[in-house]
Amino acid sequence: METKILKLFKKSPDVYLSGEQVSEALGVSRTAVWKHIEKLRGLGYEFDAVPHLGYRLRKSPDKLYSFEIESFLNTKRIGRNIKYFDTIDSTNTAAYKFAKEGAIEGTAVIAEKQTKGRGRLSREWTSPKHKGIYTSIILRPNMTPYQAPGITLVAAVSVAEALRSSIGIEARIKWPNDILINNKKIAGILTEMEAESDSIKFIILGIGINLNSKFTDLPKGSTSVFEELQRKVSRFEIAVEVFQKLEENYNIFTKEGFSPIRDKWLDLSATLGRRVRATCINRKIEGEAVGIDTDGALKIRLDNGFHEKVMAGDLVLLR
Amino acid sequence: METKILKLFKKSPDVYLSGEQVSEALGVSRTAVWKHIEKLRGLGYEFDAVPHLGYRLRKSPDKLYSFEIESFLNTKRIGRNIKYFDTIDSTNTAAYKFAKEGAIEGTAVIAEKQTKGRGRLSREWTSPKHKGIYTSIILRPNMTPYQAPGITLVAAVSVAEALRSSIGIEARIKWPNDILINNKKIAGILTEMEAESDSIKFIILGIGINLNSKFTDLPKGSTSVFEELQRKVSRFEIAVEVFQKLEENYNIFTKEGFSPIRDKWLDLSATLGRRVRATCINRKIEGEAVGIDTDGALKIRLDNGFHEKVMAGDLVLLR
Repeated sequence: METKILKLFKKSPDVYLSGEQVSEALGVSRTAVWKHIEKLRGLGYEFDAVPHLGYRLRKSPDKLYSFEIESFLNTKRIGRNIKYFDTIDSTNTAAYKFAKEGAIEGTAVIAEKQTKGRGRLSREWTSPKHKGIYTSIILRPNMTPYQAPGITLVAAVSVAEALRSSIGIEARIKWPNDILINNKKIAGILTEMEAESDSIKFIILGIGINLNSKFTDLPKGSTSVFEELQRKVSRFEIAVEVFQKLEENYNIFTKEGFSPIRDKWLDLSATLGRRVRATCINRKIEGEAVGIDTDGALKIRLDNGFHEKVMAGDLVLLR
Repeated sequence: METKILKLFKKSPDVYLSGEQVSEALGVSRTAVWKHIEKLRGLGYEFDAVPHLGYRLRKSPDKLYSFEIESFLNTKRIGRNIKYFDTIDSTNTAAYKFAKEGAIEGTAVIAEKQTKGRGRLSREWTSPKHKGIYTSIILRPNMTPYQAPGITLVAAVSVAEALRSSIGIEARIKWPNDILINNKKIAGILTEMEAESDSIKFIILGIGINLNSKFTDLPKGSTSVFEELQRKVSRFEIAVEVFQKLEENYNIFTKEGFSPIRDKWLDLSATLGRRVRATCINRKIEGEAVGIDTDGALKIRLDNGFHEKVMAGDLVLLR
């Protein structure tokens, strides 16, 4: 009901809606309307109430409440079932538990702050309160573990596209899963899965985006939208856009396969044509990043002219 | 200490050992020896005690106690840390929990009976009490999920080799993970893993082997060593042999890669040269099984002469 009330008020900003109008539009009593508005006020929403005119939504709190996001979301699956937390250890850890308990595909854990936010290879992901988007989405694709790296590219493409379409910044992707602005990291993706050797049970897609944080909040080499644009941005609008793009690209991937996602990825790549050094499990490879394979592997042309495929590991962009 | 006492008595079967001999050999008091022998008696071990002669181990119970297995095991990792259960829901589920809690590589869960034994693709694995080996081993290989199917082949090769070397039956492997005798299933393998998109966190290798069960205990199409040989076999000797072979082949795989494992697999295969029908995620493929790829995929030659690779799915041997 909070979602419906917010939707109504947000559809006509700056307009007063009488209790009767709201009551009729939503099919509930005027007392119920009043109770829900009081509840929203308790959550930080500011309503003006003027006798004979009614209510007006003056200000929404800077929170990623599920009804705040759901009131704008057009997706069928992704983000339709949001588990909201003020503070959590790690959204990926929580989503993993929900997935084990049978949570439906598209379920998203969102937290305002993570105390043990995780990045790839057990690294830390800094998650200051109310400064970014920290979300983990449960996917249940009918695929083999071989196709899992494709999901990471789907996520990277979606985050880059969402940042471009919502706030117009030129986000690029560093293989396999970093999002860069001006060569500095602004978002990261952590894909975890539970699988049998030939079928995925579920994937947890963790996404962290630095939005309104300052350099002092972040590790070296990272940036935020605030630092790049020198203005604060709406976290929930970007979260909505990320979910929308994710659903769009996930649908493309499951229906048409890897190739259209790879094309998008190539267009958005900060990696291709660059000299790179890849640190893999057992060795280091240096050369020019020249392509991406059908399985998501990075193709590197060595100085001796040979090509190597890198499936996993860390990448440094050299020049 | 129970392991050491058993080792001592099993080294010289039918021989009486005096309390003093045992006490000296193990460096504990005679009272302690007596207490441990009483403890072993409580677990079903039968000792003869004759004044002036000492103790003789007459009979061991038909149990897969950890000290029973450890007293014969020569491995460095696999099976060095055994978690023994009389009855459990699923050894894979239990091993998964132990792995999450940080259990070391090689840790093995063994149960006399599973109430919810699981096979591939959420199928049931029938696990009657004291009739088979039901074990799940935790591995922590430094690999990508792409290499996980190789681990399933390592397990299949090890189980087939162990059945051959311990009781001399001609076990063969049906791709990817069934062990057959006379074209009937005698053992199965369930590989589950937790991974990031480019690195395995841990693998649970579940192994179920039908040993002393009867046809009436088993699903249709399955068999047991008892039904094939018309005699009961020692479960713990076979369990020991499985762990030994597993360590041997796992070491080969991690050091030399997939190729030597593939060679062994090809030698043991019940699949190659056979006409097969593979039911994959989205389609059915029929043709002749002609090989196995470097990534563990089955290569099938279709009737039109083209080749297809099957990464995952169910296989029916047609003729």
